[in-house]
Amino acid sequence: MPAFEDVADGLTMPLVDAMESQRAVRRLRKDPVDDETVLRCLELATRAPSPSNSQSWEFVVVRDPDVKHQLARLNRQAWSVYRRLGGLTGGVKEHQKIVDAVQWQADHFEEVPVVIVACLRGARPWLPPVASGSYYGGAYPAVQNLLLAARALGLGAALTTLPLWSTLLARRTLGLPWNVNPIAVIPLGWPEGKYGPTTRRPVREVTHLDRFGNLAYLAE
Amino acid sequence: MPAFEDVADGLTMPLVDAMESQRAVRRLRKDPVDDETVLRCLELATRAPSPSNSQSWEFVVVRDPDVKHQLARLNRQAWSVYRRLGGLTGGVKEHQKIVDAVQWQADHFEEVPVVIVACLRGARPWLPPVASGSYYGGAYPAVQNLLLAARALGLGAALTTLPLWSTLLARRTLGLPWNVNPIAVIPLGWPEGKYGPTTRRPVREVTHLDRFGNLAYLAE
Repeated sequence: MPAFEDVADGLTMPLVDAMESQRAVRRLRKDPVDDETVLRCLELATRAPSPSNSQSWEFVVVRDPDVKHQLARLNRQAWSVYRRLGGLTGGVKEHQKIVDAVQWQADHFEEVPVVIVACLRGARPWLPPVASGSYYGGAYPAVQNLLLAARALGLGAALTTLPLWSTLLARRTLGLPWNVNPIAVIPLGWPEGKYGPTTRRPVREVTHLDRFGNLAYLAE
Repeated sequence: MPAFEDVADGLTMPLVDAMESQRAVRRLRKDPVDDETVLRCLELATRAPSPSNSQSWEFVVVRDPDVKHQLARLNRQAWSVYRRLGGLTGGVKEHQKIVDAVQWQADHFEEVPVVIVACLRGARPWLPPVASGSYYGGAYPAVQNLLLAARALGLGAALTTLPLWSTLLARRTLGLPWNVNPIAVIPLGWPEGKYGPTTRRPVREVTHLDRFGNLAYLAE
């Protein structure tokens, strides 16, 4: 298994390449990921912006088999419901590929070397909606930095919230105080396969000029 | 003013450099930013992950003076309240610098060449909290990609939600349908000054092993 010094150079990957090749990687090897590698990813996560530079993020790095098992159970509970509800969107073939990968992850959750839980300090706001959005804006830019750093280091990673379906149970599992909210879960490890291509809607289809519906760039 | 071909090479900036030098830049020049540059930033935004690859983002690129003026008014309304409430955190000196920069932005909002409003399709969920978090997870990773791309291209950018304090008024200003929610606003332009350093809490202070409170990495 590679140590941090073996992969550190990956972080000099051109920004555009990291972004264009980033994708959810759920099939992970059991091989360990060293602390230095994990901490470097988290350090880059903390370079992200946060509302008024509040930096109210906290990260729980889960390596303990018991804690991991609890998260795995919560993940399987949510996934069994979600899968039946057919919550996944996308084309049939792509849909099946995601379903298979999420199922694989649910079946092998305990074997993932590191599971990172990104949390936010501060009570979750209920009103107004924009405050709520701003609150989550304190975590997700950091999570995206973490995922890009993982990509550049050759780590597989994916973002999920399934193990957090019950804030109460997740909080108990992780020993979180009442004013720390779990926001996102990132299983991390060396990938089984390679980073494949991603599918995205063309940018001009989602870009409006001045007012919604004015797809001025689409014609070009 | 630079055209896209003059700055495009910036996107090959090493990932780690882009992340470590990213910061909110609010003092912007009036010089125009061409469509190609804006579209490339948005294209990279859309490479970000979204829940179940839903890609439910929509971006409104505001250049029209009237629409910009409406957003500027909303921004000033929210800022005048927020400033008095002292909503900003951080040390006294840093606090004052942010207040000054946000005040500058409020005073010059109409002169910013491009204002991007990131939106999400789909009704905003109210319950359970984790669904709400997952919802915003559909926008903020893309926004962070946009900010990193802007940094690499030499553009100044910052994330704000102040102009969205009233979803009703923001929606009316931008002609958004009822099922499209404005999430974040990013004024974009060539910076007045340079990208300065940022201040962050050390990663080991916010990293817990297995359970919250176990600051195992802090001792190292």
